[in-house]
Amino acid sequence: MEHQRSRKWIFRGNEVLIESSAVSVRGYLNLLYDNLNKDSQMAVVPLGHGDPSAFPSFRTSPVAEDAILDTIKSAKFNGYTLSVGMHPARRAIAEHLSHDLPYQLSADDIYLTVGGTQAIEVIASVLARPGANILLPRPGYPTYEAFARCSNLEVRHFDLIPEKGWEVDLESVEALADENTVAMVIINPGNPCGNVFTYHHLKKIAETSRKLGILVIADEVYDHIAFGSNPFVPMGKFGSIVPVLTLGSLSKRWIVPGWRFGWIATCDPDGVFKEHGITKSIESYLSICSAPATFIQAAIPEILKRTKEEFFLKIIDITREAADICYERIKGIPCISCPHKPDGSMFAMVKLNLSLLQDISDDMDFCLKLAREESVIILPGVAVGLKNWLRISFAMEPQFLEQGLERIKAFCQRHAKSNA
Amino acid sequence: MEHQRSRKWIFRGNEVLIESSAVSVRGYLNLLYDNLNKDSQMAVVPLGHGDPSAFPSFRTSPVAEDAILDTIKSAKFNGYTLSVGMHPARRAIAEHLSHDLPYQLSADDIYLTVGGTQAIEVIASVLARPGANILLPRPGYPTYEAFARCSNLEVRHFDLIPEKGWEVDLESVEALADENTVAMVIINPGNPCGNVFTYHHLKKIAETSRKLGILVIADEVYDHIAFGSNPFVPMGKFGSIVPVLTLGSLSKRWIVPGWRFGWIATCDPDGVFKEHGITKSIESYLSICSAPATFIQAAIPEILKRTKEEFFLKIIDITREAADICYERIKGIPCISCPHKPDGSMFAMVKLNLSLLQDISDDMDFCLKLAREESVIILPGVAVGLKNWLRISFAMEPQFLEQGLERIKAFCQRHAKSNA
Repeated sequence: MEHQRSRKWIFRGNEVLIESSAVSVRGYLNLLYDNLNKDSQMAVVPLGHGDPSAFPSFRTSPVAEDAILDTIKSAKFNGYTLSVGMHPARRAIAEHLSHDLPYQLSADDIYLTVGGTQAIEVIASVLARPGANILLPRPGYPTYEAFARCSNLEVRHFDLIPEKGWEVDLESVEALADENTVAMVIINPGNPCGNVFTYHHLKKIAETSRKLGILVIADEVYDHIAFGSNPFVPMGKFGSIVPVLTLGSLSKRWIVPGWRFGWIATCDPDGVFKEHGITKSIESYLSICSAPATFIQAAIPEILKRTKEEFFLKIIDITREAADICYERIKGIPCISCPHKPDGSMFAMVKLNLSLLQDISDDMDFCLKLAREESVIILPGVAVGLKNWLRISFAMEPQFLEQGLERIKAFCQRHAKSNA
Repeated sequence: MEHQRSRKWIFRGNEVLIESSAVSVRGYLNLLYDNLNKDSQMAVVPLGHGDPSAFPSFRTSPVAEDAILDTIKSAKFNGYTLSVGMHPARRAIAEHLSHDLPYQLSADDIYLTVGGTQAIEVIASVLARPGANILLPRPGYPTYEAFARCSNLEVRHFDLIPEKGWEVDLESVEALADENTVAMVIINPGNPCGNVFTYHHLKKIAETSRKLGILVIADEVYDHIAFGSNPFVPMGKFGSIVPVLTLGSLSKRWIVPGWRFGWIATCDPDGVFKEHGITKSIESYLSICSAPATFIQAAIPEILKRTKEEFFLKIIDITREAADICYERIKGIPCISCPHKPDGSMFAMVKLNLSLLQDISDDMDFCLKLAREESVIILPGVAVGLKNWLRISFAMEPQFLEQGLERIKAFCQRHAKSNA
């Protein structure tokens, strides 16, 4: 053993990976969960992530469960399938997305992925080339940063403007782009901001991207989870102005993030992606990578065709109710404020007023102490690129949410400056 | 539209990806399937890949199917789980692997992956650093090449020696390694060679790696599929000599490659991987990536504990019978020869004697014409790094296999030189 320890081993772990993941949502949440008080009698209120699947009201549709049970029982889908995905699943998704588009997608426009996460991985790999850069929103979703770093794709951030309902600051987009910029990312409905872009704003994004010669990556994993005044409009509507890579998933709308099923759709009626080697490059990466489980792929046509509208309406109703509760309760908590009432996704982005608190140094400190003292988990803004903000996930049963917000209020009162 | 076409778009698909995937197993198989004669009445005999799941005799164990049905019905596993995998699944795999090891693995030694493929992706990313190189077997499994290229990890090939039962040419390993070599890969039971390394040979591999200061990546996705005179010995047995990253999967032993469930095990009783940042780096990459479906993870303890020994014995018996048929029939086909009777995995590696054929230019030409004329798919050796050899997958019902080999014989006779 002594001899073993003194051995000179040449290998080392990749430090870029270690640095990237330290700033992932999971990385922050892990720190917070580690900081819970194990002796506390209080149930943990998880306001940290977009996964309400554990709450009974958010149980997925029986149609989805039955479809998967059937494909497993058939024993026909235990083997490998095509690396881009099974044709019936691709066709079903193409039809599903085409309902909201002014043109028809074909099965060939759809690439199946292991959740939205692998879709981001694929896109980062496909766009990487020496010197290239990509424009990401701030605040945003850090998985884009992580895969961009792994692919040596330089990251530049444009701002979302809280006072304008978290619209894209298109002037900052134009200022950041240069001849090496390949794409900009938008997340709509918004994560972490809970906003839904208007038709008019999406069109302006399309026109700006066209002017710059860059493609748009439209992260629509929260598609149709819109419950305010702006209806959800897919970016693909503007595919004739600018070619769009749309990312989608079963995870959020069907409340099955653990199923790991997503897709990339090429919304590009003029065939620009084919002409520029993007489709070939997506196919290439997928031919190397792992795919979603075959029996899940095989269940997709049934799931998309037969899930009842009532299921979606019920989810939207509970989520709207939760968003209302969240927004109203936050008004009663002095040290935090929400500049824009959430009208989509599962999140509210709230600003922390540190000047009203006596012993909290920043957003991470706030979240660590909140976890410790109140067994409430919320994500510090630093994890999504906006220091001294907080991302609160409100998608859950109202009584749990109220409990969580009550505890946040008690926490703020306890830590308030005495003269505040 | 004219205006659109003339637009100067900046983005391009990543050409390294396109080049890498062109030489993947899937890439070659796609070409062959495209070359089938669509008008032929003959059923296709798929001797190209290691996926017998479509054959009734190779249906997975009812224990595995029932375990997954139960986790879906429970609706408890629709959400996200830990990025390294669920603890009960990790613990079950640790116990499962420890049966064959002189020390106990713990749950922390196991990382769950989306099939063996993602395990390769993770390892390539973890080991990448500027200038590093990795030693891969020739013939081998091209997914290693592809992910090494994507990670900027230089690839060097050592030989497997057909005359010595496809043992590693350890002299070539020593000659290739330098101060930037981080690891060597072995695949045991062998893909594409169908060999099973002896205890003695594995120990020599361990000692050589130790001397060079490099780790061993032991691809054991065909673990326990050994039906000849050499029993399967896991490389982890030698974990005190050299730290080993073992790759495993449900895919082959349970005949469910479409379930996309695999793992990495750190077989390293002296904690070298922790000390050198390898474990941290694996955790980091997994915290960014997609994971296997949660309900599959949740079913793993049941699957590993309750699958009956008879299921495995039956699969081994059919596979042995198929290997025997394959080896014997090949003896009767003049233009191909098999230097080593397969005693593991699902493959035989056979040499093509072009001098006996009149109008076949190389292995790819052979496979293309065979697909066209006989509706038989076999993999050209060039796909696994050995030009003018062929990889024949024999894992299937004997009657189909015999039909396939009969057609190969007819094909060879038809294309034989008249004086041969």
